[in-house]
Amino acid sequence: MVRRNYIFDTIRKVFQRYGFSPIETPAMENIETLTGKYGDEGDQLLFKILNSRQFEAKNKEELKKEYEKSLEKNINSPLLTERALRYDLTVPFARYVVQHQNEITFPFRRYQIQPVWRADKPQKGRYREFFQCDADVIGSNSLLNELELLQIIDEVFHLGLRIPYVVKLNNRKILSGIAEVIDEKDKLVDITVAIDKLDKVGFDLVIQELTEKGLSEKGIAHLRELLEGLPLTDNSYDNRIAQLKEFLKNSDVGKKGIEEIEYLFQSINENISRNLNFELDLTLARGLNYYTGTIIEVKTKAAHVLLSSICGGGRYDDLTGVFGLKGVSGVGISFGIDRIFDVMNELNLFDKIDYTSQTTKLLFAHFGETERDYCISLAIQTRSAGINTEIYPDVVKKISKQFDYANKKQIPFVVVIGGDEMQSGELSLKNMVSGEQTKTKIEDIISKLK
Amino acid sequence: MVRRNYIFDTIRKVFQRYGFSPIETPAMENIETLTGKYGDEGDQLLFKILNSRQFEAKNKEELKKEYEKSLEKNINSPLLTERALRYDLTVPFARYVVQHQNEITFPFRRYQIQPVWRADKPQKGRYREFFQCDADVIGSNSLLNELELLQIIDEVFHLGLRIPYVVKLNNRKILSGIAEVIDEKDKLVDITVAIDKLDKVGFDLVIQELTEKGLSEKGIAHLRELLEGLPLTDNSYDNRIAQLKEFLKNSDVGKKGIEEIEYLFQSINENISRNLNFELDLTLARGLNYYTGTIIEVKTKAAHVLLSSICGGGRYDDLTGVFGLKGVSGVGISFGIDRIFDVMNELNLFDKIDYTSQTTKLLFAHFGETERDYCISLAIQTRSAGINTEIYPDVVKKISKQFDYANKKQIPFVVVIGGDEMQSGELSLKNMVSGEQTKTKIEDIISKLK
Repeated sequence: MVRRNYIFDTIRKVFQRYGFSPIETPAMENIETLTGKYGDEGDQLLFKILNSRQFEAKNKEELKKEYEKSLEKNINSPLLTERALRYDLTVPFARYVVQHQNEITFPFRRYQIQPVWRADKPQKGRYREFFQCDADVIGSNSLLNELELLQIIDEVFHLGLRIPYVVKLNNRKILSGIAEVIDEKDKLVDITVAIDKLDKVGFDLVIQELTEKGLSEKGIAHLRELLEGLPLTDNSYDNRIAQLKEFLKNSDVGKKGIEEIEYLFQSINENISRNLNFELDLTLARGLNYYTGTIIEVKTKAAHVLLSSICGGGRYDDLTGVFGLKGVSGVGISFGIDRIFDVMNELNLFDKIDYTSQTTKLLFAHFGETERDYCISLAIQTRSAGINTEIYPDVVKKISKQFDYANKKQIPFVVVIGGDEMQSGELSLKNMVSGEQTKTKIEDIISKLK
Repeated sequence: MVRRNYIFDTIRKVFQRYGFSPIETPAMENIETLTGKYGDEGDQLLFKILNSRQFEAKNKEELKKEYEKSLEKNINSPLLTERALRYDLTVPFARYVVQHQNEITFPFRRYQIQPVWRADKPQKGRYREFFQCDADVIGSNSLLNELELLQIIDEVFHLGLRIPYVVKLNNRKILSGIAEVIDEKDKLVDITVAIDKLDKVGFDLVIQELTEKGLSEKGIAHLRELLEGLPLTDNSYDNRIAQLKEFLKNSDVGKKGIEEIEYLFQSINENISRNLNFELDLTLARGLNYYTGTIIEVKTKAAHVLLSSICGGGRYDDLTGVFGLKGVSGVGISFGIDRIFDVMNELNLFDKIDYTSQTTKLLFAHFGETERDYCISLAIQTRSAGINTEIYPDVVKKISKQFDYANKKQIPFVVVIGGDEMQSGELSLKNMVSGEQTKTKIEDIISKLK
């Protein structure tokens, strides 16, 4: 938890630095708020709450029938279950915005760090309860929001967690433009799903998939022209944009996408010093049916770590339409806490962190009851100075038991109090990592550990 | 949430200062972990989770029968529900200790701040989801733990939240001693329940209740002797202890209780400067069947606030026996977050707090797109200096709209950027509370707001 708190605290601090306000929603939502939002599979993964005190109900026959019906037809009866645990943070957030639309100040910058629940088979990296960590700006169309979210990503990963990262950017409008130009507008999803695999399966298999999906020969040839002229591994941004502009010159939506991505890259170059970490990636689609503008994905760049997505997001047009409030657009990102945790573990990044703002820094050990009670006033001094301190509470004969305690709790410093120390005020401070021991006064210990 | 976070952060920091480690347990527990722990009423208040994918089950007939049975007999069938949401933090903590007993370093100092759920009718001050905030030391019999918990209470309320408080202390062994001395050992619960009401209902009604409960005339007369000789409103601690000692001189358990309370008050007087806030209160019982030694209750001392309990706790003998691990004793306290929140509201204490470490301190407003983009580099500087900053993201004609935004979000400072400011670097900083406006450089703004 100390490690997870470190990640949360880092991200939370950056969110606040950019003016995002925290919200939390209740664990339970009305069941109809959640069903139908995550597909059939998602509906099955909801944890549903049994209505309480059913045994007190007068309509037991009706209840039995409802239960039979729900068993046969796989439906929820409000007589049996009216609430379910939240499945993600997005849908409760949308519900919250609609419910509080008259109290919220727009543009609304909110962050939310809370657990979500899914009735899945638990396995490594997939849990029934896990945290999500989202930040969104809604009610503003400005691309400045995108830039600020990218600044947040940069600060969290570079300055905060020190994970080497690369940010891949794309724009849904560019993908739409490509589909338009090759005259396959209605095959947009098929095209992006196929292109998404390009770096994994290669060009021939992508063509094969598109043929199977019914793309015309002409369309495929046109697409091949673009993709061959625009090597995806080529980092030369200017070349690619120039070719893309030429390719999309007859598509309004495509040109709009290029305009947006150009503004964004220009702002990145001017304002983020690690701008080389940002790449245009035309294969990036991520939940295509949801995002309508910028698409963002962050992967770790560390050589010996599986290239996994540690953060993602983008701009969407319609967060709250399903709850009756049209036209609320926004842009957001979501940090993958569990993945970040795993990556930091693999890279041994946790070892380099000093947790003693959260954990105990100093233990007072002692030889008896009088000595222990003498520690109380010393601990008052170290604690007032902001040093997390413990006194070994019990009177035990063996001092080694108290050192064991310090070792097991990874307390880095121990002071042993005996009769001599009480008389002279000369304390012996032991560094539990180096083994080094120094005779010193309490004032010096405080200024050393502070 | 910003206010609640302030309370949590204050308490968390003090817990950490005393070497308590955080734990969190999952929202769901196996249902048999929870049932039978909170009485019949508690069992009915559990939120039970419907087993998922019942419609896929092959044994539908069996399921229907189980449901009928559970409806008729008010029992849980594992076929229908295997899990429930936690009802408090104590039982999941006990389960955790038993499960991880071989990994835990004892004495184990843990704190836990998490929501709990109860299927109650929601009403003011009673919610279906609310936070509990507990700290316990288990595996140590030392009274130093009690002292440290009282130091924590003092720091949280005096230094941290600035709520005027009084701590009432008692010891279960003294209550047992009293029952023993008046020869009514088996009426201990009745006696304490009755005494507990003394300051509310007066002496006569207490006597009446005890008579109804079957206490002997002799016992009642003896008790009256103690209570009359020991006015409960008398703050003279020494007098009361002396009389109590005389009264309990033939009870071993009573004498042990006095010894403990004397050690505690002596330590308080030596180590807590606000020792006058600590009172011996013989009427204090609090969940008597649970606590076995020290009993603690904290109330607000503010004149115009209802005297409500904002924190409580005590020493217990057997946390984990019900899960098969005997002999785990400990001592703990629990902060009543919702009450604390209400009290701080009533006393207007929230108004005096500076939240700008959590919320936005500075807004850059602007007259157009160029001006807005000029703000980006200014915001980079203020944010690096640790000042929570926003740039109004959209280009709007009216500057008043941006000031409105600042007012609604209670952002205390606004800088407006126009063409003049961009040329001269002379920025105009507006204090949104006082209305005062000063021309200054970005460096001065940073050193002023930092």
